[in-house]
Amino acid sequence: MTKTRVGIINVTGYAGVELARLLLNHPGVELTSVTGRSAAGQLLGDFFPHLSDADLTIEANLGEVDIAFSAMPHKESAQAVLPLLENGTRVIDISADFRLRDAGAYPQWYGFEHPAPQWLKKAVLGLPELYREKIRSAQLVACPGCYPTGAILALAPAVKSGLIRPEVIVDSKSGISGAGRSLSLTTHFSEANEDVTAYSLSGHRHLPEITQELALLKPGFSPAITFVPHLIPMTRGILPTAYAPLVAGKLPEGKRGEEELLNIYRDFYRDEPFVRVATSSPHTKYTWGSNYCYVYATIDHRTGRLIAVSALDNLMKGAASQAIQNMNIMLGIPETTGLEAAGIYP
Amino acid sequence: MTKTRVGIINVTGYAGVELARLLLNHPGVELTSVTGRSAAGQLLGDFFPHLSDADLTIEANLGEVDIAFSAMPHKESAQAVLPLLENGTRVIDISADFRLRDAGAYPQWYGFEHPAPQWLKKAVLGLPELYREKIRSAQLVACPGCYPTGAILALAPAVKSGLIRPEVIVDSKSGISGAGRSLSLTTHFSEANEDVTAYSLSGHRHLPEITQELALLKPGFSPAITFVPHLIPMTRGILPTAYAPLVAGKLPEGKRGEEELLNIYRDFYRDEPFVRVATSSPHTKYTWGSNYCYVYATIDHRTGRLIAVSALDNLMKGAASQAIQNMNIMLGIPETTGLEAAGIYP
Amino acid sequence: MTKTRVGIINVTGYAGVELARLLLNHPGVELTSVTGRSAAGQLLGDFFPHLSDADLTIEANLGEVDIAFSAMPHKESAQAVLPLLENGTRVIDISADFRLRDAGAYPQWYGFEHPAPQWLKKAVLGLPELYREKIRSAQLVACPGCYPTGAILALAPAVKSGLIRPEVIVDSKSGISGAGRSLSLTTHFSEANEDVTAYSLSGHRHLPEITQELALLKPGFSPAITFVPHLIPMTRGILPTAYAPLVAGKLPEGKRGEEELLNIYRDFYRDEPFVRVATSSPHTKYTWGSNYCYVYATIDHRTGRLIAVSALDNLMKGAASQAIQNMNIMLGIPETTGLEAAGIYP
Amino acid sequence: MTKTRVGIINVTGYAGVELARLLLNHPGVELTSVTGRSAAGQLLGDFFPHLSDADLTIEANLGEVDIAFSAMPHKESAQAVLPLLENGTRVIDISADFRLRDAGAYPQWYGFEHPAPQWLKKAVLGLPELYREKIRSAQLVACPGCYPTGAILALAPAVKSGLIRPEVIVDSKSGISGAGRSLSLTTHFSEANEDVTAYSLSGHRHLPEITQELALLKPGFSPAITFVPHLIPMTRGILPTAYAPLVAGKLPEGKRGEEELLNIYRDFYRDEPFVRVATSSPHTKYTWGSNYCYVYATIDHRTGRLIAVSALDNLMKGAASQAIQNMNIMLGIPETTGLEAAGIYP
Repeated sequence: MTKTRVGIINVTGYAGVELARLLLNHPGVELTSVTGRSAAGQLLGDFFPHLSDADLTIEANLGEVDIAFSAMPHKESAQAVLPLLENGTRVIDISADFRLRDAGAYPQWYGFEHPAPQWLKKAVLGLPELYREKIRSAQLVACPGCYPTGAILALAPAVKSGLIRPEVIVDSKSGISGAGRSLSLTTHFSEANEDVTAYSLSGHRHLPEITQELALLKPGFSPAITFVPHLIPMTRGILPTAYAPLVAGKLPEGKRGEEELLNIYRDFYRDEPFVRVATSSPHTKYTWGSNYCYVYATIDHRTGRLIAVSALDNLMKGAASQAIQNMNIMLGIPETTGLEAAGIYP
Repeated sequence: MTKTRVGIINVTGYAGVELARLLLNHPGVELTSVTGRSAAGQLLGDFFPHLSDADLTIEANLGEVDIAFSAMPHKESAQAVLPLLENGTRVIDISADFRLRDAGAYPQWYGFEHPAPQWLKKAVLGLPELYREKIRSAQLVACPGCYPTGAILALAPAVKSGLIRPEVIVDSKSGISGAGRSLSLTTHFSEANEDVTAYSLSGHRHLPEITQELALLKPGFSPAITFVPHLIPMTRGILPTAYAPLVAGKLPEGKRGEEELLNIYRDFYRDEPFVRVATSSPHTKYTWGSNYCYVYATIDHRTGRLIAVSALDNLMKGAASQAIQNMNIMLGIPETTGLEAAGIYP
Repeated sequence: MTKTRVGIINVTGYAGVELARLLLNHPGVELTSVTGRSAAGQLLGDFFPHLSDADLTIEANLGEVDIAFSAMPHKESAQAVLPLLENGTRVIDISADFRLRDAGAYPQWYGFEHPAPQWLKKAVLGLPELYREKIRSAQLVACPGCYPTGAILALAPAVKSGLIRPEVIVDSKSGISGAGRSLSLTTHFSEANEDVTAYSLSGHRHLPEITQELALLKPGFSPAITFVPHLIPMTRGILPTAYAPLVAGKLPEGKRGEEELLNIYRDFYRDEPFVRVATSSPHTKYTWGSNYCYVYATIDHRTGRLIAVSALDNLMKGAASQAIQNMNIMLGIPETTGLEAAGIYP
Repeated sequence: MTKTRVGIINVTGYAGVELARLLLNHPGVELTSVTGRSAAGQLLGDFFPHLSDADLTIEANLGEVDIAFSAMPHKESAQAVLPLLENGTRVIDISADFRLRDAGAYPQWYGFEHPAPQWLKKAVLGLPELYREKIRSAQLVACPGCYPTGAILALAPAVKSGLIRPEVIVDSKSGISGAGRSLSLTTHFSEANEDVTAYSLSGHRHLPEITQELALLKPGFSPAITFVPHLIPMTRGILPTAYAPLVAGKLPEGKRGEEELLNIYRDFYRDEPFVRVATSSPHTKYTWGSNYCYVYATIDHRTGRLIAVSALDNLMKGAASQAIQNMNIMLGIPETTGLEAAGIYP
């Protein structure tokens, strides 16, 4: 039997190379083509020595594949995948180019006119916990951003159950790899080490994604979200801490309320292979190098607020491994195939 | 002329040793006595090789001094300084033991009955930006905690000017040194490195301090604060990000509102030698090893919220150097004496 | 068919928990018993949340298994495994207790009289690159330490080929996890971060192991090794840099000598699944979380010295995954079973 | 009285900005001019927010000063300072351009023909521990590199006293700031964090400097040095570990030899304000942000080798603060002026 052929557009960034690592070891597919602008012609295993057994040559253009992953930056990703979509290739896009349903949001948030609004309607958001059924048959899966994955998983059960009011604050902390492999002072070791800062205070591009998805979870829920990301001195990991006023009277008083809240989360994620409801505030270290996301929620009784936290690896559940989870669903193979690895601790 | 004699109770912790470093180099006082339980009898310069010129012997009990700094843990600090207070020594306490005005808060938050509620009335909070005049003549100065220092400086101008409503969220990120020099899994390198976590979700001890001080800033303002601290993998630095709904109509629309907001902050801190109002979101790295605190505030126009951030070194403005700033005020010498050092970058 | 039952003595340290992570996911064996002193009675998945699916209960004593891994500290490990050895259980020991062939070395280097010198004769060193054939049928495999694994793999081809004289210097750099999960100032984040130090200058316990193995590689070779380990601020990884005078006339002059040297290394490791001869100085990051070791050697032409470097993950090829490589060999299953994962980058 | 006017050429790199921080706070001189290519026209305090009080404008060309510091890269530094030298300005050069006495070494090691060999004869190496007297009256002081400073201070007493043979190995570990503020994958946080690597195995540019200075220490001593630098994941700090065979019979056997060795080091550095002979292996953390260098030496009795270690801050004693120590000597003011700060711990 011929294995499904898969390819990666832009294998040379961090999401791209993580896709390669996972796909090279995936029993159900064969990685047959990878592209990279500046590295074209080099062996993948020379460019990335940790993959030195990979004797795939990095190409300028993608060869024929059944499923194409795009790890291109936004705007360029749409340009790269539209021809593939037109010829019927299934596409899993890690960029932001097909995440937002409203084409009008692209000029505002990303500074370009969307080249193919018709595909925004066909695209399915690649968050299996919300869209598993649609992903199965999707031709185009748009994986959510690393920040939205964490924020949505932290808040979805509370929103869905009508527990919170729309005044939501999401304060996220991300490792530096989220800023990619390109060079900038922001990612310079001596600048980022022993430092923390908040950024994008006037509005980060992941805000409309979070808002869109929380709104879709419950008719009539119009979230007014303040989202502030922070860079912290570690390579991997995202920890969003979310705050929202609880709707009065939905949960019992005291400890019993906390228990019921966790039970609502447990019910929501009961059949999810990669979401674990924690019994206390989780650490991103639980998830290092894995597709797992740990979620926790509790009540600030003094103020009547929900505090919800999630922990994940931004390059894995926040990017590459979640893309492969989507691929598994699209292929109808067990969702955990090739993704069984636990987080690496310490 | 005889120099003022100063002493440090519990020099062996991180706040204590930072006090020693600063006082050994302070031109206006002489460090004449330092104590440390387990290290008694050793030379300070042997115990801490970076201070190897210091030929002061660590003692079991404090010698006679004019001003005593206490870097003892809470509860023990009160026990240590009460005899000194009774004999008239001026005391600068870095612990929490005299920060809260309500003696009844101690059993609830710290698990002990306060041994000397009469001193809670006499104590002055050692935050010069709010209490400079009272500090001058105080016998007992209770330095605020590292988290409260950052949170209060970030929010004080907004509260004082009536800009915000009381629904305040403070999400703080702290380096590991805030957890002290004692040993625990929390401070183990392999556990803390490449990790971030939220903690004390059911209520951190610094919450009542923040609440007390914001309430005192404006009559009738009753803050309902959710405060969640986080540990991030760096040694020094605290960055609180604070969120609160803006009172409608107080600030102009758009960019002009942001400018006026910053001007209100600039006015508030105009004469402060150690608070710098930044023009963009500050980095803790600006403050490494210094007494400076950088403050920034802006508006989330989509939701009508204030976002206020401050950045400081938790062991300096959050502990040791702020204590010395208080000492300078108490002694009537220039407030910046011995504290002129800029942050060390990178 | 019944799977081979395996167990871990002392699962609660870093080597132990890494063994658990790998064995839980190993297709050829079943992890049926784990022990831990202080944690007995707790679920493994509660004690280590990154393994939260593991519903094995940590026990005080090991259940019946076919192969037992010991991750106990030295001296205690021998005590723990001797009864197992006597009853015929196969044992893979990660401690130092059966690494040295000379029982007399134990009082000198480890401070205890060896309780079972007869087992020192039967034990096989668990370095498959040198002892694969003996490991197959061994009852007791003594895995080498993390430092010796790196040093021996860096130098073995040069020693075996008679390229170097015995005046060897090994300068090793290790991540903090090598110091284990127990608490000490050495492993305190605030002490270890932004710091590097050399330690054990009067002689580290891994020195006799390195000396023994290099001597065994070539009759008449009596290495005089200076070995100095260093702690550097990262969690995982060991990088030994080894220096030795080249025997004159063995290699061609100039670049050709460098090429021939690398070819000697390539020949030596030609069939090794987990040793990769690099084409330039390797990074420990190539190996993060994997069983791979990268080796590189070159010539300092100015002085006629060999410079040899290896890079590995101290908890993996330096401890847990190498133990499993040994187990695979003992079981006669493909040596790479359960160990295929590449290093996780970045 | 007019203060000495000093200026910094290329203030925008890490050595440059450290010079600025120290000179702005120096009581004996006035920083009147700073230059920076890309940043010309900006306020120094805007470009570097930790110096936000500095209202000096960054210029394209240096204004008139009495002493000019050059923090330019090699080759460009010579071009920048030659006109100043010709007009009589005293120059302290942090680059490599005047460190080597042999003009012929520049094409080989730095790839350019030296533009002014006559100044190589006049230049004095800016290592006060060796050249204090000549520095006093020098017009041109060439500060040694960060690696040579550490290596020379670690070995000088042993060489001078004839204790070691010339077969010297120097294995150095440096924080990332040594690679400067420019952008490269080498200094990318996600690449450098959790990683260590050896580099420049075919010969680092600092090797001829170390060789030159050790040779000058003792007539007839011709060191054959292998020098291998390593990058480790921290911002600041250098720790060279040096190895060399001891000349037989120079030191007593056993512990007494170790004591005598340390006494030789203590004698050598007896009057040095910034070198501290440690009593055990030092940590770079002792020196963070300070001009101190800790030196330690011991004997590997098994092999008859010296092991010598030093610890320093590469941007301070390895660059900026050492330059200021030289300036103090040139000005005839106390050598410690403006440099009294102890290392910042933790």
